[in-house]
Amino acid sequence: MMRVFGVAISGNCYKVRLALEQLRRPYEWVEVDMMNDGTHTPGFLAMNPNAKVPVLEIEPGKHLPESDAILFYLAEGTALLPSEPFARAQVLQWLFFEQYSHEPYIAVARFIVRFLESNHPRRAELPRLRERGHQALAVMETHLGGRKYFVNDAYSIADIALYAYTHAAEEAGFDMTPYPAVRAWLKRVEATPGFVSMGGSA
Amino acid sequence: MMRVFGVAISGNCYKVRLALEQLRRPYEWVEVDMMNDGTHTPGFLAMNPNAKVPVLEIEPGKHLPESDAILFYLAEGTALLPSEPFARAQVLQWLFFEQYSHEPYIAVARFIVRFLESNHPRRAELPRLRERGHQALAVMETHLGGRKYFVNDAYSIADIALYAYTHAAEEAGFDMTPYPAVRAWLKRVEATPGFVSMGGSA
Repeated sequence: MMRVFGVAISGNCYKVRLALEQLRRPYEWVEVDMMNDGTHTPGFLAMNPNAKVPVLEIEPGKHLPESDAILFYLAEGTALLPSEPFARAQVLQWLFFEQYSHEPYIAVARFIVRFLESNHPRRAELPRLRERGHQALAVMETHLGGRKYFVNDAYSIADIALYAYTHAAEEAGFDMTPYPAVRAWLKRVEATPGFVSMGGSA
Repeated sequence: MMRVFGVAISGNCYKVRLALEQLRRPYEWVEVDMMNDGTHTPGFLAMNPNAKVPVLEIEPGKHLPESDAILFYLAEGTALLPSEPFARAQVLQWLFFEQYSHEPYIAVARFIVRFLESNHPRRAELPRLRERGHQALAVMETHLGGRKYFVNDAYSIADIALYAYTHAAEEAGFDMTPYPAVRAWLKRVEATPGFVSMGGSA
């Protein structure tokens, strides 16, 4: 059985869990102990020298890091990834958008707000993170106007990847009022078959 | 004929040019006028609402942003992208590594060093960018020890994506002495058929 090395409160790990649940693939979840630097043990670094969760263990000795690469691998040949080359490339476009223009702002703001002390010096980063995060949300709002999902009006791993931290933007302090199309899309994702919410056990 | 909307001095745009040259695909290069905010014109935003180069025009009205999504699209069905699912996923793993853990540090450091005034306040970012950039280079050095290329010892778009800014790390102020495997790999990439160097005309 496949194993996921992850952290339940991480959106990047939640993406993998949501995809596995919706694809009805059996898996075992291995919670990594972040309090004790669990991504820097020799065993973990042998799976991912970049010391980040999640890692998918396809079989013992065969490991794949990077949440969006894992999504692509799991979705290949399923309804969560179109087979037509341009549509596939558009799914990848949004996965790269997520990792470059979205996650580094919204996920990092959420981390600072939710998991650091209220007087932590990293709170000084919040204004810039919020500004860039709002830019990403505005791009999503523009794209989703008149569309049901990100690519070809069909639910795909592009939606899973972007849902993970967008649905948590409010707890990161983002006012979502200016984004009605994004808010409607969040509800649409939550109504897809097999949807599971973030956190909690698998 | 396909068109690339890009900026010659951008490593993300260079990736696309290098792949097109090595695949011997005809294309037209359209240089975007960054001095006059050329990615924020209505015409450009219609191609990419995220206002970034490069954008591949596959045909009029059919546009693909995000450098690494473009690489994947162009390489599909060629020797630059393996067909076996796990190997493909590993190529994607390194593309996401490049965009998340490498480019935001090495490319941004290069931008500050090469293109901003020597007394620009953004130079204050350099120590943190160098620290994170060295972390990425160390991950590459570990992985490349005993390997010729990033995935399955075969040259692929993973190598193209990581070459783009790694070969420019020295001009961004990174001492490459601690990375002999990375330096040997840079030479290996430069010896591949159809290789073209960064900058200059297409």
